[in-house]
Amino acid sequence: MFDPVEAVREFIRHPSISTDSRAEAGMRGAREHISGLLAGMGLAVETVPTAKHPIVLARREGPAEWPHVLIYGHYDVQPADPLELWSTPPFDPVVQDGRLFGRGAADNKGPMMVHIAAAARLLEAQPDLPLRLTFLIEGEEEIGSPSFATFLSKQAHRLKGDFVLLSDTMSPSTEQLAITTGLRGIICLDVVVEGPRSDLHSGIFGGAVANPATVLARLCATLHNADGQVNVPGFYDGVTSPEAWERAELAHLDESEAAMAARLGVPSLPLHPGYTALEATRFWPTLEINGMGGGYQGEGSKTIIPSRAFAKISCRLVAGQDPKAVEAAVIATLKDRCPPTVRLHIEPGHSGPPYRVVPPDRSDTPADQSPVLARAFRAADDAVRAAFGNAPLYLREGGSVPIIGDLQRVLGMDSIMLGMFTPEDNLHAPNESFDLGMFAKGIDVSEAILRAVAKA
Amino acid sequence: MFDPVEAVREFIRHPSISTDSRAEAGMRGAREHISGLLAGMGLAVETVPTAKHPIVLARREGPAEWPHVLIYGHYDVQPADPLELWSTPPFDPVVQDGRLFGRGAADNKGPMMVHIAAAARLLEAQPDLPLRLTFLIEGEEEIGSPSFATFLSKQAHRLKGDFVLLSDTMSPSTEQLAITTGLRGIICLDVVVEGPRSDLHSGIFGGAVANPATVLARLCATLHNADGQVNVPGFYDGVTSPEAWERAELAHLDESEAAMAARLGVPSLPLHPGYTALEATRFWPTLEINGMGGGYQGEGSKTIIPSRAFAKISCRLVAGQDPKAVEAAVIATLKDRCPPTVRLHIEPGHSGPPYRVVPPDRSDTPADQSPVLARAFRAADDAVRAAFGNAPLYLREGGSVPIIGDLQRVLGMDSIMLGMFTPEDNLHAPNESFDLGMFAKGIDVSEAILRAVAKA
Repeated sequence: MFDPVEAVREFIRHPSISTDSRAEAGMRGAREHISGLLAGMGLAVETVPTAKHPIVLARREGPAEWPHVLIYGHYDVQPADPLELWSTPPFDPVVQDGRLFGRGAADNKGPMMVHIAAAARLLEAQPDLPLRLTFLIEGEEEIGSPSFATFLSKQAHRLKGDFVLLSDTMSPSTEQLAITTGLRGIICLDVVVEGPRSDLHSGIFGGAVANPATVLARLCATLHNADGQVNVPGFYDGVTSPEAWERAELAHLDESEAAMAARLGVPSLPLHPGYTALEATRFWPTLEINGMGGGYQGEGSKTIIPSRAFAKISCRLVAGQDPKAVEAAVIATLKDRCPPTVRLHIEPGHSGPPYRVVPPDRSDTPADQSPVLARAFRAADDAVRAAFGNAPLYLREGGSVPIIGDLQRVLGMDSIMLGMFTPEDNLHAPNESFDLGMFAKGIDVSEAILRAVAKA
Repeated sequence: MFDPVEAVREFIRHPSISTDSRAEAGMRGAREHISGLLAGMGLAVETVPTAKHPIVLARREGPAEWPHVLIYGHYDVQPADPLELWSTPPFDPVVQDGRLFGRGAADNKGPMMVHIAAAARLLEAQPDLPLRLTFLIEGEEEIGSPSFATFLSKQAHRLKGDFVLLSDTMSPSTEQLAITTGLRGIICLDVVVEGPRSDLHSGIFGGAVANPATVLARLCATLHNADGQVNVPGFYDGVTSPEAWERAELAHLDESEAAMAARLGVPSLPLHPGYTALEATRFWPTLEINGMGGGYQGEGSKTIIPSRAFAKISCRLVAGQDPKAVEAAVIATLKDRCPPTVRLHIEPGHSGPPYRVVPPDRSDTPADQSPVLARAFRAADDAVRAAFGNAPLYLREGGSVPIIGDLQRVLGMDSIMLGMFTPEDNLHAPNESFDLGMFAKGIDVSEAILRAVAKA
């Protein structure tokens, strides 16, 4: 079979920057490279066009009674700028001290290759393995996967399998692998308060006219209580407390609030009733102002009443919350609280559902789980212990990967997310790298999962 | 004597844009033009250097028992851009339909020339007029008069007179002159809320860390009550209600709240308890957010917790309020209400005192007023009736002219402000113009005032 490290290096040489319209050759090169590897493993490879960047779909078919694993990855990467901060060329990968440096090394070309290499090795050893595989490698992850929902609805019947296997989440370190058991959902809103049709002189009109910046600040201020709780009726509907095992797993990531505050450079952390700071980022839904503006932005002062002001708001949602219901609740609340002296415009942006899975033998209230998924989880646990010398942590994360929730919602498929990158890897930043020891151990774990699943 | 209209035209030809460092020749040309006119009238002209643009000081000396009038004007103008919106060249003045078009025609070259021409005509007719005159023509009005306070403190003994005569305020129309009897004071504050040392991923950290934009919005929201009153302890200290005559005068500017709302393009006007909308802009102090910002400003969404957020706040103050006390109160209130989870920085900006004068025969509680000022006010009233066919309106304005308050505070001098420009004149905008009928009538009024004052 192919050399996995060389395969990642060659993959990185194609600058597949999905947001950059000048990177078409890099996108195509990356697709062709990955398609070639998958075809070389005997899979049937298709390039499925979308509105923007094609999806690579590679299938190992088989009888319906064979288990079916959907392996997800993305071949697109973040832009490399600022280039001057890179110590090595971002698209000319270099190995130093056991790490592979280059844009996409950790997000997602290296972690994706874990599963391709595992499958290649396993299929080479057992060409008649009773396992169906579908590789779904998209090219729009870094731009929000705009084509994914349409693709999913069209291809649902071909993608439906026992579970999803992927590596696009984080582990605490190269010594401690995490399996991600939850992701927060998200909704985004653009809120604009419009007042007078142009900026007004604050001397001539101040006192007579509602100031859109003031109205916006007052509206935003109503969205939380003093204890940090979101003050929107219905916002917490469906939220359930984390289970004891989830708190216990997270407690392994030990950082005091004082240490976290010092690391982030803030004087202290706010209240998050019922949660530690770390728990609040994983188990608690939020409403955040991501940006706001209005009126004069320059040096010194310009004494105007701004014509308009805006806030960009997003909410992170936890398992049990319905994004559409929360979106409607926030919009209705803002409209209800807006005074009649301005015009309020609210534009919903992208959204994604929260996601949660319960590994077998964990929950107090075990869910009805597919036996194939349970076998895969148990195999993952065993293989991680063997490769890393300790058990994986089962952690909910605070971020959002909408496609994972979509796959659960649309196809009823849960995911096994092996955290392959670590905080050292500089994702989305200069000098991105991927630990080759992690890479090798990941291939072992992935191979063990696939082998265990195939033992039908 | 010189032709007043030609004198203004020549004045406009010098592009004296004080904020533009490339306009040095225009500034010098305007100074020299005005100095030449004043010298031609027999006045002793000095060009007093300041840190930035020199002040033209022209004096007609005389015995101490002669009344002494300080006439104020400014020779600098606003920039002319956007140039493409001008119908005639901004610095090549044109007369059309009885109006003189050009940058500075109304602000302040035409209105200033009213008083120069009046003095010239009067001195030509009565060369031995028993009147001391000091013309103080500054070049930094459009950039906030940064050198004025220093100049005032150094030259106080030479500037001290019976009152100030000027035209740099508005009248409702060319048919109805207003004499400005009040100006609001001002304080400005730059408020910055600092949180984490860099923007944070809202998925990874949302819930654990205080969001500076949210904190800023909550702080700003505390600054008003629901009825629009400023919610800062001590803010209203010293504020007195307007007198009946002040309300009665203002009531002549008849505009319904619905009409004002429609003119400004807002759905409705907010509460301003105890005041009409128009009264609120003249008699009521305000606290306004002139600008605010923080976090992501672009299209779509970027799910961050911003590292910082800012608000630019200014207050307009009415007679009786002390700018320094209000500034201290707002700063103390913000500090007191700021949570310990962020760092708060507040930088005071420029400020100026409020101003109010009571013309003779108006107040229920007449103040101790200089007989020369009272004579000037009565002469102005008579002359306006003669020139315009109706009495002047005595109006407080909502804007701020800090030097007028400074002259009152430092030298104890009140001002007679004849409103020479009107809403039609497009101040600070393309196609600025000045009505030549207003100009001629203004010269008559100014001459009458000076003549009456000189009759000692």
